[in-house]
Amino acid sequence: MRDLKRKFGDRFIDDPAFLSLYSREASFEEASAKPLGVVFPTSEEEVLWLVRWAYETETPIFSQGSATSLSGNTVVTRPGIVVSFERMNKIVEVNPTDSYAVVQPGLRLEELNVELSRYGVFFPVDPGSVRSATVGGAIANGAGGMRGAKYGTMRDWVLGLRAVTGRGDLLEMGCRTLKCRNGYDLVRLFVGSEGTLGLVTEAVLRIAPMPESAAAVLAYYDSLETLVEDVVRVRSARIWPLFAEFLGPAESKEVGLEERYTLFLGVDVNRGAERDMLGRLRGIVRGAVAEEAVGLDRSMELLEPRRKLFSAQVALMQRQLGSEGLLIIEDIVVPVSKLPEAVRRVVELANRMEIPLSLGGHVGDGNLHPTTWFRKGDLEGARRAKAFIEGIGKIAIGLGGSVSAEHGIGTLKRDLLKMELTPTAIEYMKALKSVFDPKGILNPGKIL
Amino acid sequence: MRDLKRKFGDRFIDDPAFLSLYSREASFEEASAKPLGVVFPTSEEEVLWLVRWAYETETPIFSQGSATSLSGNTVVTRPGIVVSFERMNKIVEVNPTDSYAVVQPGLRLEELNVELSRYGVFFPVDPGSVRSATVGGAIANGAGGMRGAKYGTMRDWVLGLRAVTGRGDLLEMGCRTLKCRNGYDLVRLFVGSEGTLGLVTEAVLRIAPMPESAAAVLAYYDSLETLVEDVVRVRSARIWPLFAEFLGPAESKEVGLEERYTLFLGVDVNRGAERDMLGRLRGIVRGAVAEEAVGLDRSMELLEPRRKLFSAQVALMQRQLGSEGLLIIEDIVVPVSKLPEAVRRVVELANRMEIPLSLGGHVGDGNLHPTTWFRKGDLEGARRAKAFIEGIGKIAIGLGGSVSAEHGIGTLKRDLLKMELTPTAIEYMKALKSVFDPKGILNPGKIL
Repeated sequence: MRDLKRKFGDRFIDDPAFLSLYSREASFEEASAKPLGVVFPTSEEEVLWLVRWAYETETPIFSQGSATSLSGNTVVTRPGIVVSFERMNKIVEVNPTDSYAVVQPGLRLEELNVELSRYGVFFPVDPGSVRSATVGGAIANGAGGMRGAKYGTMRDWVLGLRAVTGRGDLLEMGCRTLKCRNGYDLVRLFVGSEGTLGLVTEAVLRIAPMPESAAAVLAYYDSLETLVEDVVRVRSARIWPLFAEFLGPAESKEVGLEERYTLFLGVDVNRGAERDMLGRLRGIVRGAVAEEAVGLDRSMELLEPRRKLFSAQVALMQRQLGSEGLLIIEDIVVPVSKLPEAVRRVVELANRMEIPLSLGGHVGDGNLHPTTWFRKGDLEGARRAKAFIEGIGKIAIGLGGSVSAEHGIGTLKRDLLKMELTPTAIEYMKALKSVFDPKGILNPGKIL
Repeated sequence: MRDLKRKFGDRFIDDPAFLSLYSREASFEEASAKPLGVVFPTSEEEVLWLVRWAYETETPIFSQGSATSLSGNTVVTRPGIVVSFERMNKIVEVNPTDSYAVVQPGLRLEELNVELSRYGVFFPVDPGSVRSATVGGAIANGAGGMRGAKYGTMRDWVLGLRAVTGRGDLLEMGCRTLKCRNGYDLVRLFVGSEGTLGLVTEAVLRIAPMPESAAAVLAYYDSLETLVEDVVRVRSARIWPLFAEFLGPAESKEVGLEERYTLFLGVDVNRGAERDMLGRLRGIVRGAVAEEAVGLDRSMELLEPRRKLFSAQVALMQRQLGSEGLLIIEDIVVPVSKLPEAVRRVVELANRMEIPLSLGGHVGDGNLHPTTWFRKGDLEGARRAKAFIEGIGKIAIGLGGSVSAEHGIGTLKRDLLKMELTPTAIEYMKALKSVFDPKGILNPGKIL
């Protein structure tokens, strides 16, 4: 540790009270070990030095953005060093002409978009935690979000990376152009690798022109089937929504809406085509249209109640458990047409297990976020929550889906991942991990 | 070979006259060895058997779609077996509701789109060779094309894969949903791997709703700078073109247009917004607008002269060399803003080297296809062509671009790849190759 103190000065901290702040994340997965210290690098050179030191000393490294991950992706599993990218948060270059921005990993997605909005462009990946999530964390976790139905996830928006691998090598990957075919696609291997292959020190992100305008509706449904069917009908009409989100009845009520299923449906349109689009949506949507919006800003505002899902769930939980509750926001994905069946099975499972359930998600890409909670320290509650997570993971697999859409595997879903993938796929992933991190020092205990 | 005959019957062919048809491709890269035979598998089981046989006997395998590749990606470099996927060309499933199609690798992209058009959906990747290019070839080469500025390349449109690795393992990768986070992203490692990591036996492709409508203009310019600037101006006006293509003066003339730089600019719009968009494009575009189109079909038709670039180049070449010419269609990419400078330097290089040059490309994503030719058997011509390819690759690197945008590395650009990438990146790529193909039997001599 003396080496670290000498190198990083007051940017190395080993005060135990402070350390506890950096050993946990937004999920209920708890650290299974105490970190030895937290380091705040300010340059790529420092990251290189640190990983080489860790490689020599075989010290585990846990890289961290803002720790909003929900699957144990950042929790400390062994005595090691937490690397916080808080101080590497600069925007290096914004190039709207060439559709890219170069940024450091600690930059918050929202800060990036504030800067980009000056140029009429934006970065479309929009996770629920967008206000605090960092670029590096979003890359590590392959983040998605509210605009995923139209714009996809991080893998679609990272053009190039600089990263330090677990061998202490600086790896330059990808390019600054929208297309490049320069050997194997290392960039997308890093996206979603949860800090297990390398530490990203700089990213080239693709940026997009802001939609010209939009139209949106908020509609109530008594049946989730009809709601999902309507989203499919919209797409059949050759309309590709910008967002298609839903809330369950209890959640809708909690955010100030009617106690029914709520659909939030937004479509980007050409300037001047808003009214026509609204008319068409009214013709397709069979739910009770309660609100309409015209223009991009107004359409995005209409989505605000949906963004309150997290606070609503906290409120629902607190009403039952006071401040003693632990919230578990889960993440599965199924083909869109299987969404009603998935919801039926998830509800049935929660009822059978007698655990609380709150529902919301992204209809446009089949991504469901079943949420439950239990009292802190309630071991039986924790056990049942884990069993529930396993159960809904199996439901997703059974319906041709996946155990995670955008939260990743972390410590929480390693067993589920083994159920979804073949043993062969797992073997190849382990071999890839060994290429980048032969000593297993990077975020050990995650994914595999 | 007796094993192969027994297993594949008349779907194993070793007649030398026939073999020569399967040992070359659309590029001028020549086979440096004769294949031992061609195999036409009809099932995944047969592909598995074949690769396991090749692994045991250490026999090289060269997989092939329709051999339209342009960088030596499919040429035979050692005595080995060519695997043609011609007979694995089925559409397994089209699921417009869930936005995917499951297909076999030998299916032609155009056939896929004919089928998809019945459902009002399409597969957006649209390489120049779309009429003959296969799904498997497009995956292997990470194909792009005319709609790349809006829709990206193959890496953005492959959701899941089944493939047989060089160890003879069946690997299932990815998912059927628009998002999934199930471990490392093996799918995109395979996209663009040019048959060096495994043989794809089935692909799950993402499909998109067809644009509702479109508007397009064809405009002439005396200066390429102004043409490129106008595309940038269009994007600054928050218009994200569906296509933005150009032809050089000689090529424009050859396809029946004026002898000036031609811009083909199409924008997808909402139904009813076509006229307004045309008006806006007219306001932005400073070139001489010679043609306008309204509606998706008409807008795509306006692009037809651009699609004739290949035949135009063949005609230009034949006028100089008769039927003795060899055409070399090159592929570099630079940031869009650097396109005029790239063209200036490429033209200057061709003039200095006194070699013919024809120019066209994708303005929307900075992808240039400089084309040259020489007489078959003219060793000095071939040498100069190779020097030219190296020269324009260096120009691309010097302007912050890449030595290939969508044609890949193959045998042709291995040295250039080493100039673009760091030695560290090359080392990691070699290590990845070893994971999937430790004996080096899959498409040897390519990429690395």
